[in-house]
Amino acid sequence: MGGRALVQWEQNRNNAPSSLHVDVYAGGSAPATGLEDVAFYQVPYAPSTQGVDERYDLLSRLPSLEVVQLVSAGYEHVLPLVPDHVTLCNGRGLHDASTAEHALGLILAAQRDLPRWALDQKEHRWGSVPLRSLADSRVVIVGYGSIGQAIERRLVPFETDVVRVAGRARPDEGVHGIGELHGLLPDADIVVLVTPLTEQTRGLFGAAEFALLSDDALVVNVGRGPVLDTDALLAQNGRVRAALDVTDPEPLPVEHPLWDQPGVYLTPHVAGGSAAFYPRARAFIDDQLARWAAGAPLANVVRPGR
Amino acid sequence: MGGRALVQWEQNRNNAPSSLHVDVYAGGSAPATGLEDVAFYQVPYAPSTQGVDERYDLLSRLPSLEVVQLVSAGYEHVLPLVPDHVTLCNGRGLHDASTAEHALGLILAAQRDLPRWALDQKEHRWGSVPLRSLADSRVVIVGYGSIGQAIERRLVPFETDVVRVAGRARPDEGVHGIGELHGLLPDADIVVLVTPLTEQTRGLFGAAEFALLSDDALVVNVGRGPVLDTDALLAQNGRVRAALDVTDPEPLPVEHPLWDQPGVYLTPHVAGGSAAFYPRARAFIDDQLARWAAGAPLANVVRPGR
Repeated sequence: MGGRALVQWEQNRNNAPSSLHVDVYAGGSAPATGLEDVAFYQVPYAPSTQGVDERYDLLSRLPSLEVVQLVSAGYEHVLPLVPDHVTLCNGRGLHDASTAEHALGLILAAQRDLPRWALDQKEHRWGSVPLRSLADSRVVIVGYGSIGQAIERRLVPFETDVVRVAGRARPDEGVHGIGELHGLLPDADIVVLVTPLTEQTRGLFGAAEFALLSDDALVVNVGRGPVLDTDALLAQNGRVRAALDVTDPEPLPVEHPLWDQPGVYLTPHVAGGSAAFYPRARAFIDDQLARWAAGAPLANVVRPGR
Repeated sequence: MGGRALVQWEQNRNNAPSSLHVDVYAGGSAPATGLEDVAFYQVPYAPSTQGVDERYDLLSRLPSLEVVQLVSAGYEHVLPLVPDHVTLCNGRGLHDASTAEHALGLILAAQRDLPRWALDQKEHRWGSVPLRSLADSRVVIVGYGSIGQAIERRLVPFETDVVRVAGRARPDEGVHGIGELHGLLPDADIVVLVTPLTEQTRGLFGAAEFALLSDDALVVNVGRGPVLDTDALLAQNGRVRAALDVTDPEPLPVEHPLWDQPGVYLTPHVAGGSAAFYPRARAFIDDQLARWAAGAPLANVVRPGR
């Protein structure tokens, strides 16, 4: 331990144990000096980066590096850039509150026709239609990790019936295995997809799964776009509804048919990045630096250094 | 007791105690025969009725009437039509789940820019902006009756701080009196108005209250339109945001400036009437008919017959 740390936020520099030398690097041009001593590097958070990215380029220029800390849950993109001897930690949990509340926003928007009212407001039109409710709905959560659990906590007071599905059954927690999904879909009013993208989850929700849903059911995706088969959704032509924060392809090209598909409501991959993320991320980095300074085991290690 | 009952839903006829003679009247043309025996009349639920209404006209044609049962919470409009010797019961609680979930929908819509995304979708535009969150917000609920409590239950898992305000302080329940409102507003991120309209609540939220809110605070109204002073909201010109299911005037005239006011999001008085209402109303009428048949005290009596 010891050495130098690079972190994104002033708060983390100010709260760091006095034994650490901490500098702030928020992205953009890399620091001109001192890189040779950097042992702990928190890669700055920047939503939807494209093109050359100094934040990742820096990983090859830190000869003393011991720990790379991400504040995103996904880390596959960084793995090839992190030397074998360096420990990689991710930001699991930091986006849970933000993503879970967006999932509830999408569900309520779809059940309460909020997109319709927004368009009506623009046209100065006051007219009601009978609305669905969330109350009394059976909601199947596919992906019962920390975000799935955060979604469940928010759903329960809405007088819903929540069904838990994960990759493997965990009977002691009432979690169904993914192999049981087909048996659960005919009774589902709402399905929430919140799985990471793996070879097992790619195309997980396709034509066979849509066919098992009742008319007017709702599929919500706050996980990764390719978990849902876009062509299968288009073939529903409004029979089953969808509210999607992630799409495949993403971003959605301007001429894509999904934009105008009946019963489909889209937000542009904004679930995890709301204001709720920042205080949680800063608090986590405070704690992680304290652990690092004390030589204690780090949290959220996704690949230990060898 | 005994006599005949008119109810809106088949379920209530089918579930009624066998000692009762129950007929279904769902609105529209009144039954041609048997009105002289009707002792229990559930006024059929019909959202936003206008003009001559057979449902209310019927009240003057029921010589054996003992009980009038509404399924709305509001009853002031019916009071003059109900003879003094007839007991009037309302539908308090039946709209709570529906109204509370709409309140959450409005809050999340405003915090997560859902109207923006709906308009962007129509334009095939994929682009994000930094979003607010509901998490970490302090939410002041003005009107802590059964709907206010239902809103609170749904807010708590969103990692919010809820502040309760009612007409009178109830210190043992942590409820502030309305006289304390001004002291609470400077720290509020979100204010939810969910009071009935009375002489005390008319114009309750006006220029003085807006002035105490911080920039970008949100005012939600799911109570009655005139509780919020529309001119005072217009004068904010976007400094404070609003999400309103009820307005003053209502319906909002096509040329009214509120439609295009920055930071204002409108739904057309649809909070209470969603699908969640119906099973709750039918279950309540089942129970009420059972009480009536048994000679037990009725629930939700708002004016006993003399």
